[in-house]
Parts: sequence; structure tokens; C-alpha cells
Amino acid sequence: MLADAGIRILAEDGARGLTHRAVDAAADVPRGTASNYFPTRDDLIAALVDRIETRLTPDASLAPSFDGRAPDRALFIDYLRDVVRRLTADPHVPLALFELRLEASRRPGIAATLGSWRQRAFQDDVSFNTEAALPGGPTELALLHYAVDGLMLDFLTVPLDTGLSVDAAIRELVIRLLR
Amino acid sequence: MLADAGIRILAEDGARGLTHRAVDAAADVPRGTASNYFPTRDDLIAALVDRIETRLTPDASLAPSFDGRAPDRALFIDYLRDVVRRLTADPHVPLALFELRLEASRRPGIAATLGSWRQRAFQDDVSFNTEAALPGGPTELALLHYAVDGLMLDFLTVPLDTGLSVDAAIRELVIRLLR
Repeated sequence: MLADAGIRILAEDGARGLTHRAVDAAADVPRGTASNYFPTRDDLIAALVDRIETRLTPDASLAPSFDGRAPDRALFIDYLRDVVRRLTADPHVPLALFELRLEASRRPGIAATLGSWRQRAFQDDVSFNTEAALPGGPTELALLHYAVDGLMLDFLTVPLDTGLSVDAAIRELVIRLLR
Repeated sequence: MLADAGIRILAEDGARGLTHRAVDAAADVPRGTASNYFPTRDDLIAALVDRIETRLTPDASLAPSFDGRAPDRALFIDYLRDVVRRLTADPHVPLALFELRLEASRRPGIAATLGSWRQRAFQDDVSFNTEAALPGGPTELALLHYAVDGLMLDFLTVPLDTGLSVDAAIRELVIRLLR
């Protein structure tokens, strides 16, 4: 699939490696295919953002069930660990997203696509917490977003040895930030 | 200066744009100069990491004086805001560093250079807090590191609208994480 090939290129070669021709080669399709579907580079990147969103969405049949549990911080820790487990099991997705975020600092077209998606996802997170009666409003979720982004960037690149495992870091972050 | 030209290329074009030839052109020196000083790409990147470290070091004559203040969280908030103010005033440095961290996920040579520097800087931060009797040990400083990294990445790329300013986010992070 073209979008998956693009995500792989972003993660393995960085944002500058992402060209229509590289996508054709990585997806093993005739040259011209990617530019046929996605005429501009911004179109291509919009398709990657859509695909990243899909790959970030948990498969309901595989997700651990949180039914019947009290909406407390312990539940949120398990929920967040599940998110991080999915990200680390599929590291091309978070790495591609970090590449696109840096590329967005240079290209307004990408900034617009990525910005509106991330803003919507953030609002969805806030609504999810409110509806599930989980602890944490916009401020707490913003702080947690920043911290988990930094944790993932660290873990997926050159991890510091801080004595904390990822699971322990998540627990400490939720306990301290979400209240 | 060659290293400053390299940092500018990383921030403006991304890691894949960083070649000896691009550094020569950006520094306006004869072709071959960069590869004369730094024969391999890993040598070049080690020089950039050194230069990033220098540019991150506060100019003692310009830094606000914290002398005579109690070593509490309020002092730490001011200290951290000063760090972040310097980073945002010189965004090429943090952007170049994010580029190198992603590049390190692909290149072991960069991972080694960057990893040992970041690990040393982290230990220095822990020692600084201990010696100044500031609150926070390795766990707290690790959590704060992750969170400030994520905050800077957000702020320098496509900022989420969370209702929090950078200064407010730093205050909330220190109050909640450093105890």
C-alpha cells in the first residue's frame, strides 16, 4: 500500500527521503503511481497522516477490556500503557510522525494538515476523559501529552539511562500530572 | 563557522540535507573545506554536537542571577523558564538536536555521540540539583526532561492550542513533577 510505504520511508530515511518516486519504489509499483493518486507532496503527506491515524486506532477486538473498572488513575495508567505498547510495537508510525512534525516547522502545508489533525485528536482526548469521568481536564492532558511525546522520542531514539522503565515513567507521570 | 552552518542546515533542511558540500556552501567556504576538517559524516556530526553544547551553555554575564534565593520550586521554575527562553530565542539549536535524535535512530555512530553527551548532561543536571539542594532526584528530573522535550517539540513545530502558555506549562510541570 502506498501510504504504508511512505510511512516506512519517513521512519527509515527521514522526511527528505519522501518523494513520489521513493514511494513507488518502496511499494513496488510502476513509476508514476504515487503521483497519480497524490499529485502534490502535500497530498501525499495528507494521505500519510490519514494512514497514521488509522494505524494509531486500536483494534477493538485486540484491545484489553476496561469495562466495569472504576474511572481512576489506575485505569488511566493501564490505558496509556496500552497506547504506548501499540506505538512501540509499530515504531515506524511514531517515528514518521516525529519526522512530519519537524518537517511541518519548515512547510506550512504540512503544518496545516498535521495541526488540524492533532488539535482534533487532543479535543477527542479531553472529551473521552470527560465522558468516561476519568481524572484530568485540558491542562492535565496537555501536560501528559508533552511528557509522553518526550518519553516516546527518547525511547525510540537514544534512550537516557534514568533508572526508570517506560512503564514506570508512565505510572509516575499519570500519578503526578493527572489530578 | 562550519559547525554553525551545519546546525542551520539541520534546522532548515533536515538531517538528510546535511552533507559536507552543503556545509561548505552554507558557510561560504571553498568546496572541500568541511571534509578537510571533518573527514567523515560522523566526525561532522560530532563537531555539531560540540557546538550545540556550547550554544546551549548560558552566558554567565547575561543569565539572571539566582544568588541568594532559596533552592525551592519557585527558583527551579525561573531557572527552567530561562533555559526555555534561550532555546526559543535560538530555535535552530533545539530543532537541529531533534533532527539528530531522529537520525540517531537510524545511525549507530550518531547514537553513540549523542547518547554519551545526553547521558552526561543528565547526570550533570542531577548533580546540580543535589549540590544546590534543589528539589528533585533522578526520577523527577527524568520526568521533567521528557515533558520539556515534548513541550519544546510542540512549541517549535505545530503547537497545540491547549489554553496553556509555555510559561504556564513549565510552572505546572515543575509544581507537579518536582517534589
